[in-house]
Amino acid sequence: MKDVVVIGGGAGGVPAAIRAAQLGADVAIVDARDFGGLCMNRGCVPFRHMMVASDILGAVAFGKKVGLSFKGISKDYSVLKKRQDELIGFMRQGVISTIKKNNIELIDGKGKVTGKGKVEVNGKSISCKKIILATGATWVKPDFPEGDLEEVINSDELLAVDELPKRVLLFGRNPWLLEIAQFLHRFGTKVVLATPDKAILPEESKAIRTRLNKALKKEDIEIKKEAKITGASKGKGGLRVDLDSKEGSETVLVDRILYIERAASLKGLGLTSIGLDENKEYVEVNDKMETRAEGVYAVGDLTGPQSKHYSHFSFEGGIVAAENAMGLASSVNPMTFTRVLFTQPQVASVGLTPKEAKKAGHDVFVGAAPYGMNPYGMLLAENEGIVEVVGEKKYGEVLGVHFIGSNASEMAGQAILAIQLEATMEDLARASFPHPTLSESLAEAARDALGRHIYLP
Amino acid sequence: MKDVVVIGGGAGGVPAAIRAAQLGADVAIVDARDFGGLCMNRGCVPFRHMMVASDILGAVAFGKKVGLSFKGISKDYSVLKKRQDELIGFMRQGVISTIKKNNIELIDGKGKVTGKGKVEVNGKSISCKKIILATGATWVKPDFPEGDLEEVINSDELLAVDELPKRVLLFGRNPWLLEIAQFLHRFGTKVVLATPDKAILPEESKAIRTRLNKALKKEDIEIKKEAKITGASKGKGGLRVDLDSKEGSETVLVDRILYIERAASLKGLGLTSIGLDENKEYVEVNDKMETRAEGVYAVGDLTGPQSKHYSHFSFEGGIVAAENAMGLASSVNPMTFTRVLFTQPQVASVGLTPKEAKKAGHDVFVGAAPYGMNPYGMLLAENEGIVEVVGEKKYGEVLGVHFIGSNASEMAGQAILAIQLEATMEDLARASFPHPTLSESLAEAARDALGRHIYLP
Repeated sequence: MKDVVVIGGGAGGVPAAIRAAQLGADVAIVDARDFGGLCMNRGCVPFRHMMVASDILGAVAFGKKVGLSFKGISKDYSVLKKRQDELIGFMRQGVISTIKKNNIELIDGKGKVTGKGKVEVNGKSISCKKIILATGATWVKPDFPEGDLEEVINSDELLAVDELPKRVLLFGRNPWLLEIAQFLHRFGTKVVLATPDKAILPEESKAIRTRLNKALKKEDIEIKKEAKITGASKGKGGLRVDLDSKEGSETVLVDRILYIERAASLKGLGLTSIGLDENKEYVEVNDKMETRAEGVYAVGDLTGPQSKHYSHFSFEGGIVAAENAMGLASSVNPMTFTRVLFTQPQVASVGLTPKEAKKAGHDVFVGAAPYGMNPYGMLLAENEGIVEVVGEKKYGEVLGVHFIGSNASEMAGQAILAIQLEATMEDLARASFPHPTLSESLAEAARDALGRHIYLP
Repeated sequence: MKDVVVIGGGAGGVPAAIRAAQLGADVAIVDARDFGGLCMNRGCVPFRHMMVASDILGAVAFGKKVGLSFKGISKDYSVLKKRQDELIGFMRQGVISTIKKNNIELIDGKGKVTGKGKVEVNGKSISCKKIILATGATWVKPDFPEGDLEEVINSDELLAVDELPKRVLLFGRNPWLLEIAQFLHRFGTKVVLATPDKAILPEESKAIRTRLNKALKKEDIEIKKEAKITGASKGKGGLRVDLDSKEGSETVLVDRILYIERAASLKGLGLTSIGLDENKEYVEVNDKMETRAEGVYAVGDLTGPQSKHYSHFSFEGGIVAAENAMGLASSVNPMTFTRVLFTQPQVASVGLTPKEAKKAGHDVFVGAAPYGMNPYGMLLAENEGIVEVVGEKKYGEVLGVHFIGSNASEMAGQAILAIQLEATMEDLARASFPHPTLSESLAEAARDALGRHIYLP
């Protein structure tokens, strides 16, 4: 009898297993594919590696402003890919050895719940006190005409190629498309980015999404909004895709369509055996990561729509599920939920946007500080950068912070701690951040919200 | 009769004047040289601009790991310098217009206190209720033999040249020397860095300073410790400098010696007229930035030794002095004092080092997470990076956080907020930082301190 069985060895499952073992549990972790999950093997990590290269090309382009010019730039994708595969292999080994070092039983196979306290893997039944489901999400089939052509690929297929395609249409709502589009564009691929929505990153505050849009357009990345693929046909010159968008109807000639929509997959997990509905969009959980079935927790991409699919959210949920499974009282903090995008400029959104804060019934006040007015921002020519803070008037509590610019993904940490520690706008306004840094703009944005900015015009 | 007269228009004086004006004061600000002070005109800003260029060269060198190679790099210092001078001019105009927009009287001239509530500028006396002294520091004369040779320069003189010197000995304790050394080295100057101390950054925690030392050595920057200049003579090939160091005696041939030690200058400020001693090392103030003379505040470099000369500390003091001068009860937070260094890797130290915390009588516990074990850190090959957290055992309160690695200066903001908001190690351990970022290592370091790290071996 195991104390805890974790099904899924990715960004949520692995920390869940380790935390449970730390708390004294006899744990088994089951994974059908590769430990580390989508994130490490075919998601966050390889894409961030591509963005490292993409950032260097951004730095090189900036170089001429400060007297640095570069001749004969050669871009060898095979070198990048080889390093990427090696690093991922190394990280995967690290995960496996950490699991083993914690005396967790590691089972290769597809795990399935067969009843209360019962998990089946490779035809063998395991009894356990608690179950943590962490199987992630799977690819959604393209819903546009000719979506089953072999030229329509997802990011697993893109990551497998040795040579980058020459012309790519990136279609859909997944924010990763923006990162991949910028990387491909900078590496020499002709890209067209097409979203069915009215704007890219429609959930972000207006200041953020319009600035990102501007930055990408300035870089000559073509963006189509309110887009719909109405047909596609293979011809001599490539794939002819009929595209409707806000700009009208047109035919674009490409080599690949990249479509990477993902959704939680509830089928085949045995949910009905414990009284859960497998026909839902995702497994519903509370802040303790408990499902409605006693003793069964769920974490990560399995528990929300694509807009919630962030590895750090899986990690947090994994820790919380393990602690609750082992009798502690632990819960995730929905106020610090963070979205990040590793484009250049980066985007990070922590907590509520002004719109969401109003919708939640708060009496909202907002402040902002553009990086174009920040000394270091001026040195970096961060004309599209800004930080926006959202607070509620009654206690002055900070509800959200939104960044676009260099290092947004690291600066998000300031906002996460501020909200987690229930900081007020006054606290942020008084924070003594180092000079010259972009962080100074966070304090200035808070001072702006309070009507006492120092250096803003 | 003015409410507040601020003497000195730099990083401390300007925010002091603006904050006082915001609180309703009739304010005058006096500066003898250029508004924006050393920091904006001849310090933090131009050096950070140089580090922007230096970082690009670092990124380019890294490029080959990810398949990016360059046939030729040309480095034109005159382009960098022109942009730098233009940006500084633009920022200075911005400061002046912000001062004017706040209806602050701007006086060009050398200000001097002549008694309680009396300031003299250009032979004219101004009466006022409160005085804020913010005149900064000045260059210390070299104390080594032949220190008055014209080849011995400070950073004002370095910033004035149109062409970088070919060979430079950087001598002294000012941490800026490390930034300048790296910039010069990357731009093609042969540099020798010599410190009288036993280590570079001797005040930093051991993990940090040894890693920085290693990174600079790996880049072939020559570092001499326990160094002393025993003589110098001009010859045909340049300046022959006799240098004693831990490694023995040697003669180095250079074009310039850069020496940039700075100290508060109390002379000529009229301090004796208000009962203050002008023969001290610096003007003593309490946490309210009050001097011992009633109604007289002092802020910034004037109030501490060189190790305290940070622009953000001046800013914080300026705001606090103005608020107290206008009747509010405000104080600086000595716990969040931060040192930063914009080398690559960057260094940032917030609060107490382990040694300082023990000395202050705390029962100390420490955790660390090397970036070599962080997924993004691995992608960046951040082998020298680490974050170290220092806490006290009784309440678990965080007392200090020390970073070396990319973005340390921005990540410092997380530590500053954590300490300001009196976070515990448990709070840091639970912070849900985005993935993949270096920030994740801050939470992991806190978990390490608590004995429950997840991914560390």
